[in-house]
Amino acid sequence: MAVLGATGYTGVELLRVLAQHPRVRVTVVTSQQFAGKPLSEVYPSLAGKCDLVLEELDVAKVASRSALAFAALPHKTSMEVVAALVEQGLRVVDLSADFRLHDPEVYRQWYSPHKAPRLLRQAVYGLTEIHRRSISRARLVANPGCYPTGAVLGLAPLFARRLVRGTVLIDAKSGVTGAGRSSAVELSFSEVNENFKAYSVGVHRHTPEIEQELSEIAKSTVSILFVPHLVPMSRGILSTMYVELKRRVSDTELALLYKTFYHNGPFVRILPYGVFPETKEVRGSNDCVVGLRYEPRAKRLIVITALDNLVKGAAGQAVQNMNLMYGWPEAEGLRGAALVP
Amino acid sequence: MAVLGATGYTGVELLRVLAQHPRVRVTVVTSQQFAGKPLSEVYPSLAGKCDLVLEELDVAKVASRSALAFAALPHKTSMEVVAALVEQGLRVVDLSADFRLHDPEVYRQWYSPHKAPRLLRQAVYGLTEIHRRSISRARLVANPGCYPTGAVLGLAPLFARRLVRGTVLIDAKSGVTGAGRSSAVELSFSEVNENFKAYSVGVHRHTPEIEQELSEIAKSTVSILFVPHLVPMSRGILSTMYVELKRRVSDTELALLYKTFYHNGPFVRILPYGVFPETKEVRGSNDCVVGLRYEPRAKRLIVITALDNLVKGAAGQAVQNMNLMYGWPEAEGLRGAALVP
Amino acid sequence: MAVLGATGYTGVELLRVLAQHPRVRVTVVTSQQFAGKPLSEVYPSLAGKCDLVLEELDVAKVASRSALAFAALPHKTSMEVVAALVEQGLRVVDLSADFRLHDPEVYRQWYSPHKAPRLLRQAVYGLTEIHRRSISRARLVANPGCYPTGAVLGLAPLFARRLVRGTVLIDAKSGVTGAGRSSAVELSFSEVNENFKAYSVGVHRHTPEIEQELSEIAKSTVSILFVPHLVPMSRGILSTMYVELKRRVSDTELALLYKTFYHNGPFVRILPYGVFPETKEVRGSNDCVVGLRYEPRAKRLIVITALDNLVKGAAGQAVQNMNLMYGWPEAEGLRGAALVP
Amino acid sequence: MAVLGATGYTGVELLRVLAQHPRVRVTVVTSQQFAGKPLSEVYPSLAGKCDLVLEELDVAKVASRSALAFAALPHKTSMEVVAALVEQGLRVVDLSADFRLHDPEVYRQWYSPHKAPRLLRQAVYGLTEIHRRSISRARLVANPGCYPTGAVLGLAPLFARRLVRGTVLIDAKSGVTGAGRSSAVELSFSEVNENFKAYSVGVHRHTPEIEQELSEIAKSTVSILFVPHLVPMSRGILSTMYVELKRRVSDTELALLYKTFYHNGPFVRILPYGVFPETKEVRGSNDCVVGLRYEPRAKRLIVITALDNLVKGAAGQAVQNMNLMYGWPEAEGLRGAALVP
Repeated sequence: MAVLGATGYTGVELLRVLAQHPRVRVTVVTSQQFAGKPLSEVYPSLAGKCDLVLEELDVAKVASRSALAFAALPHKTSMEVVAALVEQGLRVVDLSADFRLHDPEVYRQWYSPHKAPRLLRQAVYGLTEIHRRSISRARLVANPGCYPTGAVLGLAPLFARRLVRGTVLIDAKSGVTGAGRSSAVELSFSEVNENFKAYSVGVHRHTPEIEQELSEIAKSTVSILFVPHLVPMSRGILSTMYVELKRRVSDTELALLYKTFYHNGPFVRILPYGVFPETKEVRGSNDCVVGLRYEPRAKRLIVITALDNLVKGAAGQAVQNMNLMYGWPEAEGLRGAALVP
Repeated sequence: MAVLGATGYTGVELLRVLAQHPRVRVTVVTSQQFAGKPLSEVYPSLAGKCDLVLEELDVAKVASRSALAFAALPHKTSMEVVAALVEQGLRVVDLSADFRLHDPEVYRQWYSPHKAPRLLRQAVYGLTEIHRRSISRARLVANPGCYPTGAVLGLAPLFARRLVRGTVLIDAKSGVTGAGRSSAVELSFSEVNENFKAYSVGVHRHTPEIEQELSEIAKSTVSILFVPHLVPMSRGILSTMYVELKRRVSDTELALLYKTFYHNGPFVRILPYGVFPETKEVRGSNDCVVGLRYEPRAKRLIVITALDNLVKGAAGQAVQNMNLMYGWPEAEGLRGAALVP
Repeated sequence: MAVLGATGYTGVELLRVLAQHPRVRVTVVTSQQFAGKPLSEVYPSLAGKCDLVLEELDVAKVASRSALAFAALPHKTSMEVVAALVEQGLRVVDLSADFRLHDPEVYRQWYSPHKAPRLLRQAVYGLTEIHRRSISRARLVANPGCYPTGAVLGLAPLFARRLVRGTVLIDAKSGVTGAGRSSAVELSFSEVNENFKAYSVGVHRHTPEIEQELSEIAKSTVSILFVPHLVPMSRGILSTMYVELKRRVSDTELALLYKTFYHNGPFVRILPYGVFPETKEVRGSNDCVVGLRYEPRAKRLIVITALDNLVKGAAGQAVQNMNLMYGWPEAEGLRGAALVP
Repeated sequence: MAVLGATGYTGVELLRVLAQHPRVRVTVVTSQQFAGKPLSEVYPSLAGKCDLVLEELDVAKVASRSALAFAALPHKTSMEVVAALVEQGLRVVDLSADFRLHDPEVYRQWYSPHKAPRLLRQAVYGLTEIHRRSISRARLVANPGCYPTGAVLGLAPLFARRLVRGTVLIDAKSGVTGAGRSSAVELSFSEVNENFKAYSVGVHRHTPEIEQELSEIAKSTVSILFVPHLVPMSRGILSTMYVELKRRVSDTELALLYKTFYHNGPFVRILPYGVFPETKEVRGSNDCVVGLRYEPRAKRLIVITALDNLVKGAAGQAVQNMNLMYGWPEAEGLRGAALVP
């Protein structure tokens, strides 16, 4: 396997996860900034786990030495590299946003003009629990964003049953690694620590991704209000979602609905009614945990999901998708428990 | 002045704020746990600022040596102490929940039977910006909860103009000092750090307090959905509020509405339309900062407020109220800027 | 295997590590406080990884259902339980301090009178890299303290070669989980966060443990000065050690000395001369990383070691010892990379 | 007064402190990056406290509108600006390193060639407690580094009495704001949080500054070993210092020595023998707190000092120096208590 963009946070997390995978050997790691250096010099934690030297990205070389590539590259860059890799016959799991939106026009609105619109049509959206079958046959999987993973997993059963009325409010809170390995002053420790804030209120780029998936599940146009916040912690996303229901649904029906919907997946865990998850219980694991409670006075169902943005929200789900693409057990290499405390 | 319960977090913050107040001398500090010890032994940061010895609470002694008492005692305990103090002719700012809810029946539902229902009727709810006049004449001020301060200040102008339709959703996030000086394992560093979670979902005791105040402002029964979360930081509350409006309100009208509503107060700051506050900009200051933005697709107004739960959410507002009770400038002793970074 | 005291931080970390161990099945988990509850209710992160019900500790039952017990019990309690378990023929890895000090008189001085002094003589000190052979034959392994692990591993090669003159200064810094799952107010988030302090200066109970081991290695009485500090983070110990050498040792000789000393172990990593470790690179892994640099002006060798106090400093090393006791590969189940970032 | 470099962390802290100073009005604030913007747009916490517009640095303009300038500029830049300001007749407190080292050759070794060596000779080192008299007469005060302030204040009484033998070891730990407002990836939240490390081991630029001051006090050449560490917190420095004494000094003599040495200063607080400070008790205040304990086994005196690197370690001490330069009470504007918790 190849990991392109191996020194970003998603890249290094892929390497951590893959180092525990019994069927995989990483053969190529690329990095624009650190090409030529041993990986373990940049990330000493990988010494003895992945002792490769970082290379410049060369599509032909990657293709000659690996059957599947994880592309953990910046948006726009990814598009072209992925197209070339697919052309060379590689399977690709792309962790950028470039192949997540089916409609190139929507991509253009939120990002920039798309340069590989035909390939876009072949890409499968890699939210594993929703698209298992297509993923297992895909050549190109567009791994979901971290926020969309938590939001869609928490809402899918409701939309599948067409229980939702009106606009769903998604008040999401993320740890700082969600922004990637960054030198932005706003992400420096002295700015983030002991601080809490909303950002990209109503205009975050994960909005169309969430709407696309929920609309597909609901088989009608869904619109949401998405407000992300930055939490002074490294990993974890908690999404608090407020849903108006078309009819009153009993606690037991709710629990049954969710458990049935996710019955065949190892990673989505439904908590007992009225119990809610916290991010620490999933830190470092590939789990997504769901809590539910109906508030009769406000006539709102509260759905809260927790996941690790770098695992189920990125690298873990990418490996989960790879497992499906190869016909391996879905949880292979992903069974590690969260790091608690 | 006396500070009762001086070694809790609200107590020690009162002492920090009062040490900078040019017209006040603290003469009595009480503590059940540390009576007999110098205050500066328990809180070395107060050495040289408030060199008193902690005493056991003795109402007669307090009354003989101070004209106003800040009661920073636990709920239920406060009730009886405050009643005795008022009887002795003292003015009291009570920082517990005991005199915040006008209706003893509501108090009973959320806490326990009230033991001083008559006094309850005389207490003035101390949200300074809303009740200035009554506070200036009050003998007993019930200082608001930290969450209600942020929520009501953010919503009051809308309810005063009767612009709100349906249930307001208040998704609030608080630093850990909001829980007070506590030995609960759930509040230990190893549990809270690198963790984010919701708690008391839909059942938090600040709910009736918020509803009481908004209903009074709206002159009709208001019901809200309040979901608090715990942020791994020490101080600060950010409240993200989602409001459905009866009619479309332009950006300029909104800005004008809020600025007019708070024009005569030094501590509520309205940000330019579309700009939102963060908790760090108010840490240690008595400010409450408000940001606004209307989301046309979701037809929701988003109101976000930030304050320091120990200052504007507790000790600072208590001193602000004391200033009014004595006819002093409202901002006296409260002009310190936030500690940034 | 049995884990006694399964809901303390060391216990839960043992379960996390053992869940990844291919040769081990945990059959008994005990907890005084939570007996009768499913483990996953207390630690949701273990749901699906270890679905046992917590039991009260009953030595006979433990003996009937497991061949080896990890005792993660408080000091003093452990002593008696371990004695009973050994009597029943079980192998035991004890993670308390009760069997670490060979001399019952020293134990009495630093803790309290020892109740099983005969068993003390049979216990093997479980610093794996130093006592491999004895551990592999031991019935009772006394797993080292977290600080002693970092200190002794960093200094052992120097003392083995008798290079040290005078008193070694060990300035150590630990994350908060080192104090265990605790309800002490001093360990609450609001006290620890944004704070740094020394504690137990010169009187910490790990002092005699470090001196015992270094003296044994040096074959002469070694005395140290040990000053621990509390870092506002969850996991990790960094020990900065200042050593006066009897003679000047070249960089190459130093590097060679350390690499040779640890050549047959998978977990002690020697960094290139002048490069120092940080705690993040070992968080969640069983590694102990060592950095070295000689300061000619001060005539001091600086040795810095980093480890995760809950892994190499507790649960990981316990499993490493178990591997030796069973003749399994030393790194079995312990190959996971650190959680970075 | 003018604050040059007003949007760095030292600059904004100067503005926070000066906003509380009863005799000072800030008239000029400069910023290269944000010139033209209102200060409160960059630092909303200063809204209402300092409502100036940021300007480009123009020496003539600064000179025409202020009598004293605080220069919070980068090293090297500061040198030239300060020279020009002094030439224009302004008093200057320079918070860079440019005028701290008396010997231009030493400056060259640790930084770069000095461009104003003559002015260097006129600069007074602004460690207030040590150089009160010269500071009160100075035109140019070189405000000390944050580490040197804590180290020298903790060691000065010992060197003044010539009690020290051999090399003093200074194991210092600093919060992240010590590195200034920075976009370095190593200082991003995701890198620093949950991490602890040493840096610049033995080669930190504050070394010659500490040695210069201690040598002057000791009236002989002093050499130290200085090892700084980075703590995952925003503010605070704790310096743990290990000192070999020429003769045994009793606890009472020690206490007396320190209390006498600092008897006429409001900000250095000596704790009871054996009690040590923590950084939280000085966060936001201008205090430097000192703890002492002699370890007979190791024959070392342990001295620990705590201060806030941005206050006593930078902006607070600068204002303290300004007070002396103007003949005002030394503590004017600096009496605020630390922000606890």
